[in-house]
Amino acid sequence: MGKKYVYDFSEGSMDMKPLLGGKGANLCEMTKLGIPVPSGFVISTEACIAFGKAGNEFPDGLQEEVAEHLAGLEERTGKSLGDPDNPLLVSVRSGAMFSMPGMMDTVLNLGLNNDSVLGLAAMTGDERFAFDAYRRFIQMFGKVVKEVDGQMFEDAITARREKAGVQFDNELSATDLKQLVSEFKKILRDETGESFPEDPPVQLEMAIKAVFQSWGNPRAVTYRRHYNISDDLGTAVNVQQMVFGNMGDDSGTGVAFTRNPSTGDKEIFGDYLINAQGEDVVAGIRKTRKLSEMGEDMPQVFEELIGVMQKLEQHYRDMEDIEFTIEKGKLYMLQTRDGKRTAAAAVKIAVDMVEEGLITREEAVAKVDPAQLDQLMHPMIDPKADYKQIATGLNASPGAAVGKAVFDADTAAEQGKNGEAVILVRWETSPDDIHGLIESEGVLTSHGGMTSHAAVVARGMGKPAVCGADQINIDEKERRFTVDGNVVKEGDILSIDGTTGKVIMGAVDLVPPLINENFQAIVAWADGIRTLGVRTNADTPEDSSKAREFGAEGIGLCRTEHMFMAEARLPIVRKMIMSESADDRAEALEKLLPMQQEDFEGIFEAMHGLPVTIRLLDPPLHEFLPDYAEVLVDLERLKLSGGSREDIEEKEGIAARVRSLREMNPMLGTRGCRLGIQWPEIYEMQVRAIMQAAVAINARRGDAPLVEIMIPLVAFAEELRILRELTVRTCDAVLADAGVGIDYLVGTMIELPRAALTADEISEYADFFSFGTNDLTQTTLGFSRDDAEGKFLTYYLEEGIIRQNPFETIDVDGVGKLVETAVKLSRGKKSDIKLGVCGEHGGEAESVKFCHGIGLDYVSCSPYRVPIASLAAAQAVLEEKKMVYSNV
Amino acid sequence: MGKKYVYDFSEGSMDMKPLLGGKGANLCEMTKLGIPVPSGFVISTEACIAFGKAGNEFPDGLQEEVAEHLAGLEERTGKSLGDPDNPLLVSVRSGAMFSMPGMMDTVLNLGLNNDSVLGLAAMTGDERFAFDAYRRFIQMFGKVVKEVDGQMFEDAITARREKAGVQFDNELSATDLKQLVSEFKKILRDETGESFPEDPPVQLEMAIKAVFQSWGNPRAVTYRRHYNISDDLGTAVNVQQMVFGNMGDDSGTGVAFTRNPSTGDKEIFGDYLINAQGEDVVAGIRKTRKLSEMGEDMPQVFEELIGVMQKLEQHYRDMEDIEFTIEKGKLYMLQTRDGKRTAAAAVKIAVDMVEEGLITREEAVAKVDPAQLDQLMHPMIDPKADYKQIATGLNASPGAAVGKAVFDADTAAEQGKNGEAVILVRWETSPDDIHGLIESEGVLTSHGGMTSHAAVVARGMGKPAVCGADQINIDEKERRFTVDGNVVKEGDILSIDGTTGKVIMGAVDLVPPLINENFQAIVAWADGIRTLGVRTNADTPEDSSKAREFGAEGIGLCRTEHMFMAEARLPIVRKMIMSESADDRAEALEKLLPMQQEDFEGIFEAMHGLPVTIRLLDPPLHEFLPDYAEVLVDLERLKLSGGSREDIEEKEGIAARVRSLREMNPMLGTRGCRLGIQWPEIYEMQVRAIMQAAVAINARRGDAPLVEIMIPLVAFAEELRILRELTVRTCDAVLADAGVGIDYLVGTMIELPRAALTADEISEYADFFSFGTNDLTQTTLGFSRDDAEGKFLTYYLEEGIIRQNPFETIDVDGVGKLVETAVKLSRGKKSDIKLGVCGEHGGEAESVKFCHGIGLDYVSCSPYRVPIASLAAAQAVLEEKKMVYSNV
Repeated sequence: MGKKYVYDFSEGSMDMKPLLGGKGANLCEMTKLGIPVPSGFVISTEACIAFGKAGNEFPDGLQEEVAEHLAGLEERTGKSLGDPDNPLLVSVRSGAMFSMPGMMDTVLNLGLNNDSVLGLAAMTGDERFAFDAYRRFIQMFGKVVKEVDGQMFEDAITARREKAGVQFDNELSATDLKQLVSEFKKILRDETGESFPEDPPVQLEMAIKAVFQSWGNPRAVTYRRHYNISDDLGTAVNVQQMVFGNMGDDSGTGVAFTRNPSTGDKEIFGDYLINAQGEDVVAGIRKTRKLSEMGEDMPQVFEELIGVMQKLEQHYRDMEDIEFTIEKGKLYMLQTRDGKRTAAAAVKIAVDMVEEGLITREEAVAKVDPAQLDQLMHPMIDPKADYKQIATGLNASPGAAVGKAVFDADTAAEQGKNGEAVILVRWETSPDDIHGLIESEGVLTSHGGMTSHAAVVARGMGKPAVCGADQINIDEKERRFTVDGNVVKEGDILSIDGTTGKVIMGAVDLVPPLINENFQAIVAWADGIRTLGVRTNADTPEDSSKAREFGAEGIGLCRTEHMFMAEARLPIVRKMIMSESADDRAEALEKLLPMQQEDFEGIFEAMHGLPVTIRLLDPPLHEFLPDYAEVLVDLERLKLSGGSREDIEEKEGIAARVRSLREMNPMLGTRGCRLGIQWPEIYEMQVRAIMQAAVAINARRGDAPLVEIMIPLVAFAEELRILRELTVRTCDAVLADAGVGIDYLVGTMIELPRAALTADEISEYADFFSFGTNDLTQTTLGFSRDDAEGKFLTYYLEEGIIRQNPFETIDVDGVGKLVETAVKLSRGKKSDIKLGVCGEHGGEAESVKFCHGIGLDYVSCSPYRVPIASLAAAQAVLEEKKMVYSNV
Repeated sequence: MGKKYVYDFSEGSMDMKPLLGGKGANLCEMTKLGIPVPSGFVISTEACIAFGKAGNEFPDGLQEEVAEHLAGLEERTGKSLGDPDNPLLVSVRSGAMFSMPGMMDTVLNLGLNNDSVLGLAAMTGDERFAFDAYRRFIQMFGKVVKEVDGQMFEDAITARREKAGVQFDNELSATDLKQLVSEFKKILRDETGESFPEDPPVQLEMAIKAVFQSWGNPRAVTYRRHYNISDDLGTAVNVQQMVFGNMGDDSGTGVAFTRNPSTGDKEIFGDYLINAQGEDVVAGIRKTRKLSEMGEDMPQVFEELIGVMQKLEQHYRDMEDIEFTIEKGKLYMLQTRDGKRTAAAAVKIAVDMVEEGLITREEAVAKVDPAQLDQLMHPMIDPKADYKQIATGLNASPGAAVGKAVFDADTAAEQGKNGEAVILVRWETSPDDIHGLIESEGVLTSHGGMTSHAAVVARGMGKPAVCGADQINIDEKERRFTVDGNVVKEGDILSIDGTTGKVIMGAVDLVPPLINENFQAIVAWADGIRTLGVRTNADTPEDSSKAREFGAEGIGLCRTEHMFMAEARLPIVRKMIMSESADDRAEALEKLLPMQQEDFEGIFEAMHGLPVTIRLLDPPLHEFLPDYAEVLVDLERLKLSGGSREDIEEKEGIAARVRSLREMNPMLGTRGCRLGIQWPEIYEMQVRAIMQAAVAINARRGDAPLVEIMIPLVAFAEELRILRELTVRTCDAVLADAGVGIDYLVGTMIELPRAALTADEISEYADFFSFGTNDLTQTTLGFSRDDAEGKFLTYYLEEGIIRQNPFETIDVDGVGKLVETAVKLSRGKKSDIKLGVCGEHGGEAESVKFCHGIGLDYVSCSPYRVPIASLAAAQAVLEEKKMVYSNV
């Protein structure tokens, strides 16, 4: 007695997916539930594997088992394969453990030959249908089993149509189709040297073998490599009785959802057709009827269908998407799976089902896709809208916006304040554009990447942004842009979609954001489940408050460089950098101190009672100076246009300073702690401002803020030792002056591979680590984000060379390995060290789950991503407990 | 019976360094050899550790042991501490396992008090000397043991000198010194509240404790942290009889080497003084006599000294550097250690000693410092020369050069061809300057780092280069540069030292390179010992031949970008990059193909029979285009000076292309395999050129070259899969066309952290890995080499934040960890994968030893570093076998 390879539908269940494939296991499950499913059997994935090992031959015993189950099927249906009076027709379909849509082969209508086609014609009373099915079978058999070029069949059909003088296939008569059947058989014979097999069991064996072999076809292999599916799994094969919805007015076919997938409302939702085959519903040739009307047409079947739908929803604990066929008054379910739904519906259904007592809160949290929450937080383009897309840029900040195009910040600010909706269009934005950004609906730039000024600021504000749309050609003077012959002038209406990067001419309908009670319920339940902390990246009191509303438990990253960029401060910052003497520099820093202190007081107020991690100055100093090429061009212009000697000399001085500071690779240059070590007075000023702010808040509120001071870009433990000493010395001096004691932490970013690899040494001087996974991704992969996105990274993603954007989803094999190494090394030395992530990955679901898995204490993300991080963190807990099941 | 803490010199030996410290163990060793050493004993490092653990108190039994050994010392010398007639004086010196020069404390002349000073005066017949010794002892005791501010003593001396009306200390009379003794004692009393201890055993105990405590003084701790010496080792304390060379004409003192340390000649070499103390020889106040003259002055002692020196050389198997004192006709050896020597001497001594049968070849190889070989390969500044240094730049390519300053390549080429020695001085060099570089003695640039064009080209040619000397201000039009008020005009003589980065006004004497028979013998012996392969980085047939002469066993890195930069090709390369259509690009590539093929044929010829690793194009395309700022300035000039519409439009076209290609961080941008994947036609052209060259050589020499094709900058296995496929497809097509079979390998650089972390996956598509440790250092540390050197990295090195330049010596804790990880991962998957290093670390001794240690197959370095790598690789083997002993 050999291995069992074949299972009747009544022998399997939904937990046998590895053995029976997804489709087979679900057919078995429905059969087990007593739901009417066309009868059939599954040949297991193990048979497929054995087939491969045997050199593409049936393993011992399989042929007999198939014959046995076929006999059983014939007995159950009362029909038999090839019977000229009452023929059994079967479908032969692949079905692997993981869905691989369209990748493998299917053969329908198997069992037809010159005899049984007559039986089918008699049974259906439709000779045309029977011969159409027959020619389709031969065509499919030829392509799939015999690998004949499909174009030859199409050419034959075209020739036949021309002969018949008709335009469409469905206008061909039964006679035409009979003729085609002969022609198809001839093609088969000519191409393969073998006749079409009239013997149905032979047809079946050949079809099963073809499906097995399709597991190894190139497109399936490519697909599996792309989705990391093992080549060793194999596919199952489902052999199932064909049923026909086109056998008269007591037959029909339809598709349905157990709830409204658009709104989530609990109502019947679907379409059906009387006397039609499944493909007719989808093809849209005949006008379908609403499922709710079916009660009038065939009340009994309708009642049965409603019952089945309820049963499926109860059983799968989700909204199901089903396909059914009625053959001569008898209902057959062909498929059930969890239905796709809009973001609004997903949230409503999950909450409703909890209220109905159908699912638990945990299940509800598991059922909402974090990406759907994201959609609900921003306006989006109405999925039904038509529009004219004229360009594509980077999806720099999610959400869609509509407004008048304006080409400078002043105009944007002015019109925006007057209540006009405007979209700010710039080559790139700079800190000077902030007032215009604040008053705009969204921003479009033709340059700059995901970390450009416009992108970072827009994400912080939760405003849509499309950046680096380099096809558009902005003429600032003429106040217009052109792209592919389209012209958008100032005042013209423009739409952008920051979720997808689309630039659209004219207005487009938007769906408004929907942060309603259902949304809040899901997030609150998620907060109750997750163990990972969620903080926010925020640089202003406004952002801090917004994030706190969304549930942030503190600030994980407060960048101080944006504070330096503010309009009123940039001149002082530039003066500080241009200073030739230490005294001049000290004077400029003295001016900045009270401004920084005010910033910190505002943030401490907004986050009172919650920890605030402040990162000391990070970017290279030349970022605060004008662009080198611009300075040189200005200088040339001054010289050629007879500028005064003084003007020229001043410009030359600036050019020299910019030249001496500018860097080949600023990302890897004098920034972060390298600045702090060489110009300690800058960090001292910042630390003083932080502690003075803490002292002030403590005095005002009687309660000190929870201050965490963070040193960026450490590569060597010695760097942190030096700067920790500076920080502690400065803090203690401020506290001693004030005569108060305030606790504070000192820690560092881990954002360089070397820091991760020596985290044990570095931890000696750190109370906490925050993994800066943006920069860690740049260095680990050698990808400059500014240079990769829109260029080779986009190409890699389009070509499938890499699957996910590593700046969105953490690169587990590279960056993730380093983070894990650092966690182990640092906890090994200092078990209570606080560990978090503050890269943009902190707001991306898959990355958040990774962070949970390796035992971090918190993630930190932009305010509008806080709910998403929370939901993902909760789902990570549920996945760990194996509480997540979905039927897709 | 407690632990033994104290050892007489006769009880120890040189292998007891951990317990007795370096100095103590050597004193014991000499004693054991029967060489006359002033008598004494060592208090062990274990006593020091126990002292610390006991809260800075003597551990049980130590006091008694010291007393016992002191009694033995008094007995052996016939003198006793504090004796008013025949006083014993001792020195108390620290001596740790590892030498920490000047870091810890010493007390000399211990045993003096108001009584014994008279005995010393009587014994020496020199009252002045006795009181000078006494005041020195009190001063030292005060500073070291009592921690009195040393300035107070100096102030008292100054006041005394003024009172006496003399200029120098040695002019003070015995009476003055007696007065100072009183004043010093008063200072001690006033500052510490305690009197100077007149009781010698108390003096001794306090001195020993002070030396123990000096192990923990801040400068010693800092020193240990810097040199990675454990804090747990402790120091030993040596208590030794003082001997005096100033006791009349039968006394004296001297220093000597057992051979000539400058030439290596086997001859007596040293200086001595009759009736003098050791410090007099060093101070240079009195004119010393040559040691060879000593035979006349005191023949018997001289003979004894020669015998001792021979014995020491035989025993330590090296040239020794000794100190001796003769007290009343009796010779005492105070110290012996391996002597420092010039590069030429090091090589000669090592080879001579082998010939003399004194040492083995292995020992000879172990004795030569790889850095010394480096010196011998290049001219260097005569160590005795005086010169005026006017600036410092980066030591970009070793060796020194003297010549006339010239400010453009054409003049350099012209004058150089005429036999003039010229130094090319440029802001930066570019490929257009090559003809000038070839004809110059050396190059000086005011910009650009260690990887700038000038630096890379000069290293390849073995020419001296000083780069990035940014203090110098070049005025190309006026043909001169200025620095700190100094002006160097065209034609003025200038010297540079590329080994140190010095820029020198005028001519300086040079020592010529010395690649003589001794040099070749050492390298040949090293070649016989090493197991690590040594290849070269070479891009031209000339470099390849040079490296082969030096012993290179193949090419580990042939860069193809320099071939693109050649004067005749750059226009074609630019045309290829600027092409708007694929056809135009293909046309340009067709033109480049035969040129590349010719390059490869030349290299294959030069390296026939040895493997050649060719790296496909690596740098970003914009490196071949003009500088962006320059283009914009040109454009502005054209516009303002009324350039024609066509000219302006052409320039605008160039500006647009440069703008679209230029990158924020080119190091992390579209280069290496990212180019090859997006523009496969470039790599296809290169691979075709390589294989066609191989076919041609095969036909010509009847023997195919050993071709290894290397894909740069892989981060993902998929990248290499795609490009390996392209490479194999292209090679096989060429071979099929030619109808021959030639084996070749395809591999990749591992130069990104992600590649190292996923080396197992990547190894699937690689026959070999070459670790590109230059770029791996840049990404792992987040250091852009161009931006770090001369800026923050230099600051870090100066401040001791990091110990070694990670671009010179591999950063073992960070980069090294990644390389090791990659070795393990790849060998685990593919045990026979060939592994090498082709970063500049491949030619640096410490890094080469690391490469040997982790089991790489070879290192590859610039031609002039091949002998250094070979020597270091041999020493790594010897260190492994513990065959290396040195007495330093």
